[in-house]
Amino acid sequence: MTRDLVSGGQQIHAPDDLKSLLEEIHQQAMKITEGHVADYIPALAEVNPELCGLTLATLDGEVFNVGDTHEQFSIQSISKIFGLMLAMERLGEDLWDRVKMEPSGQAFNSIVQLEWEKGIPRNPMINAGAIVVSDVLVSRYSASKNAVLSLVRTLCGNDNVYADNIVHQSEKEHGHRNAALAHLMKSFGNIDADVEELLDHYFWQCALTMSCENLARSFTFLANDGVCPFSKKEIMSKRDSQRINALLSTSGMYDQSGEFAFTVGVPAKSGVGGGMIAVVPDFGVICSWSPRLNSFGNSARGMYMVRELANRLGLSVY
Amino acid sequence: MTRDLVSGGQQIHAPDDLKSLLEEIHQQAMKITEGHVADYIPALAEVNPELCGLTLATLDGEVFNVGDTHEQFSIQSISKIFGLMLAMERLGEDLWDRVKMEPSGQAFNSIVQLEWEKGIPRNPMINAGAIVVSDVLVSRYSASKNAVLSLVRTLCGNDNVYADNIVHQSEKEHGHRNAALAHLMKSFGNIDADVEELLDHYFWQCALTMSCENLARSFTFLANDGVCPFSKKEIMSKRDSQRINALLSTSGMYDQSGEFAFTVGVPAKSGVGGGMIAVVPDFGVICSWSPRLNSFGNSARGMYMVRELANRLGLSVY
Amino acid sequence: MTRDLVSGGQQIHAPDDLKSLLEEIHQQAMKITEGHVADYIPALAEVNPELCGLTLATLDGEVFNVGDTHEQFSIQSISKIFGLMLAMERLGEDLWDRVKMEPSGQAFNSIVQLEWEKGIPRNPMINAGAIVVSDVLVSRYSASKNAVLSLVRTLCGNDNVYADNIVHQSEKEHGHRNAALAHLMKSFGNIDADVEELLDHYFWQCALTMSCENLARSFTFLANDGVCPFSKKEIMSKRDSQRINALLSTSGMYDQSGEFAFTVGVPAKSGVGGGMIAVVPDFGVICSWSPRLNSFGNSARGMYMVRELANRLGLSVY
Amino acid sequence: MTRDLVSGGQQIHAPDDLKSLLEEIHQQAMKITEGHVADYIPALAEVNPELCGLTLATLDGEVFNVGDTHEQFSIQSISKIFGLMLAMERLGEDLWDRVKMEPSGQAFNSIVQLEWEKGIPRNPMINAGAIVVSDVLVSRYSASKNAVLSLVRTLCGNDNVYADNIVHQSEKEHGHRNAALAHLMKSFGNIDADVEELLDHYFWQCALTMSCENLARSFTFLANDGVCPFSKKEIMSKRDSQRINALLSTSGMYDQSGEFAFTVGVPAKSGVGGGMIAVVPDFGVICSWSPRLNSFGNSARGMYMVRELANRLGLSVY
Repeated sequence: MTRDLVSGGQQIHAPDDLKSLLEEIHQQAMKITEGHVADYIPALAEVNPELCGLTLATLDGEVFNVGDTHEQFSIQSISKIFGLMLAMERLGEDLWDRVKMEPSGQAFNSIVQLEWEKGIPRNPMINAGAIVVSDVLVSRYSASKNAVLSLVRTLCGNDNVYADNIVHQSEKEHGHRNAALAHLMKSFGNIDADVEELLDHYFWQCALTMSCENLARSFTFLANDGVCPFSKKEIMSKRDSQRINALLSTSGMYDQSGEFAFTVGVPAKSGVGGGMIAVVPDFGVICSWSPRLNSFGNSARGMYMVRELANRLGLSVY
Repeated sequence: MTRDLVSGGQQIHAPDDLKSLLEEIHQQAMKITEGHVADYIPALAEVNPELCGLTLATLDGEVFNVGDTHEQFSIQSISKIFGLMLAMERLGEDLWDRVKMEPSGQAFNSIVQLEWEKGIPRNPMINAGAIVVSDVLVSRYSASKNAVLSLVRTLCGNDNVYADNIVHQSEKEHGHRNAALAHLMKSFGNIDADVEELLDHYFWQCALTMSCENLARSFTFLANDGVCPFSKKEIMSKRDSQRINALLSTSGMYDQSGEFAFTVGVPAKSGVGGGMIAVVPDFGVICSWSPRLNSFGNSARGMYMVRELANRLGLSVY
Repeated sequence: MTRDLVSGGQQIHAPDDLKSLLEEIHQQAMKITEGHVADYIPALAEVNPELCGLTLATLDGEVFNVGDTHEQFSIQSISKIFGLMLAMERLGEDLWDRVKMEPSGQAFNSIVQLEWEKGIPRNPMINAGAIVVSDVLVSRYSASKNAVLSLVRTLCGNDNVYADNIVHQSEKEHGHRNAALAHLMKSFGNIDADVEELLDHYFWQCALTMSCENLARSFTFLANDGVCPFSKKEIMSKRDSQRINALLSTSGMYDQSGEFAFTVGVPAKSGVGGGMIAVVPDFGVICSWSPRLNSFGNSARGMYMVRELANRLGLSVY
Repeated sequence: MTRDLVSGGQQIHAPDDLKSLLEEIHQQAMKITEGHVADYIPALAEVNPELCGLTLATLDGEVFNVGDTHEQFSIQSISKIFGLMLAMERLGEDLWDRVKMEPSGQAFNSIVQLEWEKGIPRNPMINAGAIVVSDVLVSRYSASKNAVLSLVRTLCGNDNVYADNIVHQSEKEHGHRNAALAHLMKSFGNIDADVEELLDHYFWQCALTMSCENLARSFTFLANDGVCPFSKKEIMSKRDSQRINALLSTSGMYDQSGEFAFTVGVPAKSGVGGGMIAVVPDFGVICSWSPRLNSFGNSARGMYMVRELANRLGLSVY
């Protein structure tokens, strides 16, 4: 570790220290039994609620794993970042005519806001926004699922990333609220593709399964101004990388985004599968996973672990 | 200037360069004639719309001024930060039971959100939240206006800060929307003080007049983990300083906060008087002022100047 | 009784029958103990919840009283009709630019609707609408309270109608929600008078106390095309009388108006003091009173009594 | 004509008079050129906007026709009454657990209200409510379209009633807003059937084409306490007939229902095809048709004709 943590004063020199810190925090997190596993589809409800992983991937190439960091889980809304990346690449600035970049100020899937704003979602991190993003993918890529798979596998350096077919089908069967969002936006002219086809992509994308380690690796480029620290490949421009971090900061944690900025202070994205990634610019990426969710839909143990780690190391960007 | 700008790569060594850059940006901004001066009260409507100031105060003690940086203007919503500081000091964590820390996702004074959330405002940067904060001040300080004046004068190092009496009275006469917010919150039990007394404080605070230079100096402590770089005095803890920056990042620029994070990437607060302060952690504070407002209520020239400066110097925290 | 009940087929000949029917229904109603006395102000909360009166005043001049029909109670929202009559007289058709005549479709004092519709209330039977009506009275009558008192005393033929001073003051102290409505409408330009003065009138009017018999007599003109059957005096035109009945039919029973039309089928107005008047065109007026309210704010016993009486006699206008 | 019009005082003796009156009113209506033909689907947009029909069917069996009363037009929302009749028959009181009977207070297809009230529509006359009704039909009738056809043909005494296939298909292609409503309600558990199948029924039903005369005849039973005056057959109980009239009175004319009650005063239902039926209890049914719609979606000429006729004859039920 060579990084002089921003405004921290203290320097973190030794990887051993970090590993110990992660272990200590993970141990404390295991005592938390609050929250409930997402149960809107059977496939998610059956996950062992005690599982808990914590990964830290730093920009100098080290990866610290504690707990169940190699278990595959449903990444759910974390996949919204992958979709967004491809839509930004394909549509450029025009994307922002179809989805805004403002925090939503309401429960993550509220249809009311969408009605008020004439079918233009507040941002790409809420369901409505990610559905518009999926519409771009389905309409602009000849094989939208392949495009996502290819991106994800490149980012995490693992060719064994797939969507869980049972979760995918189950989401479709129970996805009437998202279908309502899609049809409402189509009635406002903000959806091009066939709704069924578009939702198939959207639910498939949510059903991607990955491990903590894979996810942490995938997003290190966001902590490194767009450049993957492992492959040295430029994934996107520094400007676009900062923009995604800005979106995660204001809108990544559902209706707990403000509190997360307030108490943790780094860009982050969570999913109802219990996963969460947190980007620390110039330092690295944290990924946590544990299935029980708090009332906002964020992992209870994950919130604890990421907050503790950020506070102990002084990682807030503010 | 000794700071190696975070993730910028380029170093800014010479104050002369910065001054030239500010002058160039200011010159470009003067060509912008879009927007309208706030006209809901006569006292604001009469301000010369061409005035335009830009100040940069760095943590090593230098202050760069370009344009009308010594003109006094109505700081309006920027005063919400001063009020919040005193309320946090007096009430501690209990404050956050009465006002949340989530972005509002709607126009800055929407009464709808307040109704939905049973009288608990989304954050202290919207009017409803600042009214709750004023309630704390009026209820917990024996002389709430003196407390604010004393704080402001200390922060900017200038004993000649006052509220404009004409603006203060005019706000009261035209402040029926804010009165509606206060009465609605009182009906939900979230206001202790007499509504009239509380609004008197609130409107008085909005009517404070300051210059760009005074404002920039006032908020340097937010860029310095709570410590004033001039006096070396600890204004607040590092933690609270970061929390205020987090609030400014998600909620400081009305319903343009997300776009501001996306395109600029630093904590900031604007006011309908045309002022804006932007905090760059570990670097300094920018203050801009020009009266013509865009459709979100933010200064059109100010937005340009702060965005340009941040992008040119690579100041985004993300 | 000489009336051939509209579409009823059966004729009601004997007053004795009606009296017996009223007594039977009243007796059944006394068994109902559901609901809660309004307790937002102490003066209302202290009323004996067991009191229960039922009056029927027919157009041929007979008045049937059962139970506590001479007890004075707080008429509350029933007073909205008196205010509306005076405002219609003074402002004519212009009144309907300031308050609409559409059912509100939400809780009776929702501020959300008012915000959406830019300060124009849905109808004069919800609080916001009655506040606009009070604004007309305060602005257009030199002594608005006297104008109301004079009207009410004439209508019921009783000079001993007064507002309860304790209720009046108590309403003012607890009336922050109504103050919010008034200030919000003033911010939209739909209130002329000083808010405090206007609310004083509004709360005073709500605090009028009357008996079942007085109220039933007062509104017989609405069942008689605008002509008082006792004095033969034309109170208003047939057209205006029908218009008020239309408003009561779509909006008189808070958010239970539709169900009331569906199950009872006559124009009616209730108040949180537990009173209710129901107009049966060409037949007469029913007034019920009992303090315990159902979840919509309508008297539980009153709902039973009026529905039973209407159904037994076939009084629906539909 | 032998009817002594309720509260009218004047008697209408001669059919000739009525015919003249209808002709005079129709002639006046032809001068109205305001409004726009519904254009959300091509099939409706192509209708000749000048067509205009007015039918009055009285309970003593006479039918007066003026203008284009034998032209077939798309009955659209008027079909909601037919659907409701079948759902009431099949589900009885349980229907009212799934759809309320309260006026909606907002634009006729607002999704916001539905979200607030957890998937329970305000009443069966708004789209959401009619979709729930269609769900009942599709789920409870083996051949729901046949059931509707059979009912309609019996009511109007004409076996040549069909749905327009082009309109039906066109509605399906442009029906994303209604699909959003259906999916949203299904997400709340208030839809049993497959959404696509249900919407097929709903759009088919809206695409029924009938003439003014057919429609007027169809609904005479509502003016006659549930008994068809032509066939003497009891279509439904008096109580249910009054209930439907109550629903039409509070909710039949979109967001102009209150104004319609206020200015006309009889139960009525309109459709965006330009048709309207108005029920005058104990007297008869008026049906008007002309394609140009006012801002509320009601026929401009139709509104004039029905209001004039009601006011001239004193038909208000209030």
